[in-house]
This record gives sequence, C-alpha cells and structure tokens, in this order.
Amino acid sequence: MPKIVLEEVSLRDGLQFEEKVLPLKDKLHLFRLLTGAGVKRVQIGSFVHPKIVPQMADTDEFISRIKDDYSEVLITGLVLNQKGLERAVDSGLKHVSLSVSASNTHSLKNVRRPYQEALDSMVVLIETAVEGGMRVRAGVQCAFGCVYEGAISEDRVVDTACAMADAGASELNLADTTGMANPIQIKQLVKRVKQSIPEIAVSLHLHDTRGLGLANMMAGYEVGVAIFDVSAGGLGGCPFVKGASGNVPTEDAVNLFNQIDVDTGIGLEALCNVVNKYEALLGRRLPGRMSRVIKSQGSC
Amino acid sequence: MPKIVLEEVSLRDGLQFEEKVLPLKDKLHLFRLLTGAGVKRVQIGSFVHPKIVPQMADTDEFISRIKDDYSEVLITGLVLNQKGLERAVDSGLKHVSLSVSASNTHSLKNVRRPYQEALDSMVVLIETAVEGGMRVRAGVQCAFGCVYEGAISEDRVVDTACAMADAGASELNLADTTGMANPIQIKQLVKRVKQSIPEIAVSLHLHDTRGLGLANMMAGYEVGVAIFDVSAGGLGGCPFVKGASGNVPTEDAVNLFNQIDVDTGIGLEALCNVVNKYEALLGRRLPGRMSRVIKSQGSC
Repeated sequence: MPKIVLEEVSLRDGLQFEEKVLPLKDKLHLFRLLTGAGVKRVQIGSFVHPKIVPQMADTDEFISRIKDDYSEVLITGLVLNQKGLERAVDSGLKHVSLSVSASNTHSLKNVRRPYQEALDSMVVLIETAVEGGMRVRAGVQCAFGCVYEGAISEDRVVDTACAMADAGASELNLADTTGMANPIQIKQLVKRVKQSIPEIAVSLHLHDTRGLGLANMMAGYEVGVAIFDVSAGGLGGCPFVKGASGNVPTEDAVNLFNQIDVDTGIGLEALCNVVNKYEALLGRRLPGRMSRVIKSQGSC
Repeated sequence: MPKIVLEEVSLRDGLQFEEKVLPLKDKLHLFRLLTGAGVKRVQIGSFVHPKIVPQMADTDEFISRIKDDYSEVLITGLVLNQKGLERAVDSGLKHVSLSVSASNTHSLKNVRRPYQEALDSMVVLIETAVEGGMRVRAGVQCAFGCVYEGAISEDRVVDTACAMADAGASELNLADTTGMANPIQIKQLVKRVKQSIPEIAVSLHLHDTRGLGLANMMAGYEVGVAIFDVSAGGLGGCPFVKGASGNVPTEDAVNLFNQIDVDTGIGLEALCNVVNKYEALLGRRLPGRMSRVIKSQGSC
C-alpha cells in the first residue's frame, strides 16, 4: 500500500489564530492524543516573540517536556529569525521549518522586509541551522498566489526553492498561504519544482479558504507529493478572510487517503477524539467533516 | 474557453431539508436572482405529496409562474411516481428528473420498494414521459456507495444506467447521495458508464458530506463530465449525518472553474448575493466559502 506523511500543524498554525491562549497542559494532552492516533510529524509551535504571539510563548518548554519521549515522532517548530533559531537550538530541537514569501508585498507586510532581503537572510539562517546539525524544511509562502499581488510567477517560486535547497534544506514546502491554488496549478508548479530540484522532497501546505484544500491535496498526490500539512478539525484561519477555515482538516485528509487505499498511519476514530477535544477546549465547532460523520454512524 | 453547465438544485435538494417552508414569493425571488446571475439550469422542486414534503407543495404553481418567461433557462423538477409525472405534464414542464437507487436497502427505506421493482417502475415512467414529449434525466442514487450496504457494485450502476438509457433518458446522472465517493472512483465509474453508453451525456450529483465535493467535481471534469449539480451556499444536508452540508456550493464550484479557465456562464459576485439572500431568509450561515471571501476582499 502506498504511504504518505501528514504533518500536524494545529498546535502552531491552528492555535496561533485563537484568542484563547491554551495552557501547556492542554497542548501536551493534545500532543499525546495526536501521537496516540498515529500522527508521526508534529509542528508544535513557533519561536516568535511572546509579546507578538502569546499563543506560542511556551514553545521552548513544550519541546523540553516531550523531546526525549517521542523518538519515533518528528517534532518540529517554525523559526522566523536568528533569535528564534538560537532558541530552537537551545531547546534541543533537531528539525525546524523556515520560510520566505514569494510575494514582495506580502513579505513587506508580514516580516517588514522586501522579498530579496528576506530570502538572503533565510539562506543564511538555513546554512547556520544545517551547520549546527539540524534538518531544515524550507517553505515558499504565497507560492500559488497572493491576495495583494494576485498571480505569483512560477520562475520566482522555483528560484526561491533552488536558493533554499542550495543552502542545505532537506525538504521544500510550497505553501498556499491564502487558499488561492487550484488543482491544475498545483500539478504544474510541483512538476516544475521537482524537475528543477529532483533530489529534494516536496511537501504542500494547503489552506482550505475557498474549499479547494482536498482537491489540491489530491492533485499534489497525483504528481507524487507524499508529505502534506494538515490541522485537526481544520483549526486555523486566514488573516484575509474573516471566518475562513485553516489548513485541510487532518481527519478529512485521512478519510480521503483511506478511501483511495493510501496509508497515513493514522487512526480515524482516535483522530476524531482529538477534534472533539479541540472543540471542547475552544468552545466551538470546527469545520472538519469526518468527526461529525463518525458521530452519526451509530444512527445509520 | 471550455464550458460546463451547473444545474442549480438549492430550490429542491436544498430547501427540502429546511424546517422553515419558504413562501412562493421568496422562491420566485431566489429563482430570479439565480437566473440573473447567469444560472441556465434550475431544478425548482419535486412532485411529491405535499403532506410528505410541504416545502415542495407549490412546485406546480412555481412552474406556472415562470415557464413562459425564461425560454433560455432549462427548468426541471424531480418526479418520483406516476402521479408526480402527471402533475409535471399538467404544469407544462418540458424536462424532468427521475431516479432509482442502486442500493437495495436504500431503495427499500427510501421508496419502500426493492431495487429491481423500483427500476422496472422507473423504466415505465421514463418511457411514458418520453412518449409524452418530455426530455428526461435519469439518475442513479448511491452510485458511489451506500451508508447501509457500503460499496455498490459498478456492474449494478452500469446496468441501471443502461436500462434507463434504453428507456429513452437523454442524460444520466450519477449521484453520490451521501458524499461517499472519492476522486479515483469517480474517474473509474464515469469512464465505465461512458464506455457502456457513449451516446448519452453523463452528469454528476455530488454531496460534500466528507468535504470531497470539489475534489470529486474536479475528477469528473478531468474525465469529461460537463454537467454538475450544485446548490447555492451548499444549502442542503444528508439524512445520515446530522449537520452535514449538502451539494457542492455553487459559488465554490464557479470559483474552481473560473480558476482553471472553464466557463460556467455564472457571475460570482451576483451569485454570492443569492447566497446572502438565502442566509437572510433562513437565518443562518451556509457552508459555502466564496461569499465570505468576496465579502472580505474589500479589506485586503
């Protein structure tokens, strides 16, 4: 049976949008439920200033509490700058995610640096991390379009990916930051990146803002992508669309792959219990579908 | 630019699940908004007993109010039995939809007849309708799976389709009644039906119960399907999954096809106004995404 890997990002990309700051004990509980369901890659937080993103203030302590007990799980965190990388190294993390936006306008608004300057700085960070013995996933944000600039040139995305691969990244993540991708574009861009850098794994970070998350995931799978970011319940959002859902719901991705006989290693029912836990902690219903389908199955 | 046709089913498959029975004046307003947005096919109701489905009690009058004024719009209604067909004929309708379930258990529960008996009766109805000068779309419910029986044999679906095509149907509709289809299955079954009955148009009725509606629509498009059922806002539901959404939201389908340069003839912003109207009339938010994206665009 073919296999794919789902990287769970609810604890980072999901919780960073929440007004409610979950205490570490809840995050630890969620982490244990996720890994208990079979999740093998977890992005557990980001190394940003706690005043800017208080939801992520406990990332260092979170890592220290779990890093020795989950040798079979890839634990990773998002690094945005030199200071964050130092914190990641100090925490004992062995894998980090770094990224740059392919859109100049988005880059200026997001990190207050134009594209080229942000990329140059990211290349230095990747080299530093790799020299320090870390594995690095390098991401290209807005790879499929930007709410400010509209279409993003494929050449720009490929050049960005190549620069980060040359710096030592072991995986390239193409991010549809605002859910603007379509299945044909996914296939085309993934093929181009794979042709330009055949020796590196390509993963996809898809947002479901326009309901195309699973269609884009299927398109990515059809052109050989085997690593996808997902978020339990579809937790997360989009700063540009009020009330939008976040990444593709983990449970709906697991259902898709179950249906087409692809192994994710994740148990659907156990995963839906994590969604239920998130909904209980956050006090609202999340957009993912399969937890409701599972709940209703008893009534058929 | 390639073209596809979207058949709007919110007035039938959507409203039939609503507790609130919308008065005819609201339905007429929604119909005018839909056709004003460019919708060219509308399933406006079903000919069922008004005591069983009070939401559809005004189908005959609805037709009489619009049939002479919308010559460029295909107006159709769902017929379940001989009495319904007579009402459809009397109303002056020129096109009807008929269907049978490929699942014996579902057929027994839904129309209190086993599969073969239901199919035989449907064949007679199709012949009668066609002899009377009507065009008929024949549907196969549960074509991609059944909540009671699980997998449904492809042979059963193909045989059902062939019997209804032989009876004179001009279009075959494969219905994923409970949202259980996956993209690979869609491609496989559509290809088989097209190979068995090459001279007939195949359309898809997809439910978004498990979030796979657009992924399945894309798969259908990739194997040549050019007619898809949709429902504004994703209005509708699934009797087996409490709180599930209905058919693929029209506005999200239009966005998908816009993105891949396929012409639906429908204006996205005008369509989102219909979704807003539905939400105002029903007093709740519908699951479709694009109306929220359109609303947020001013803030970017």
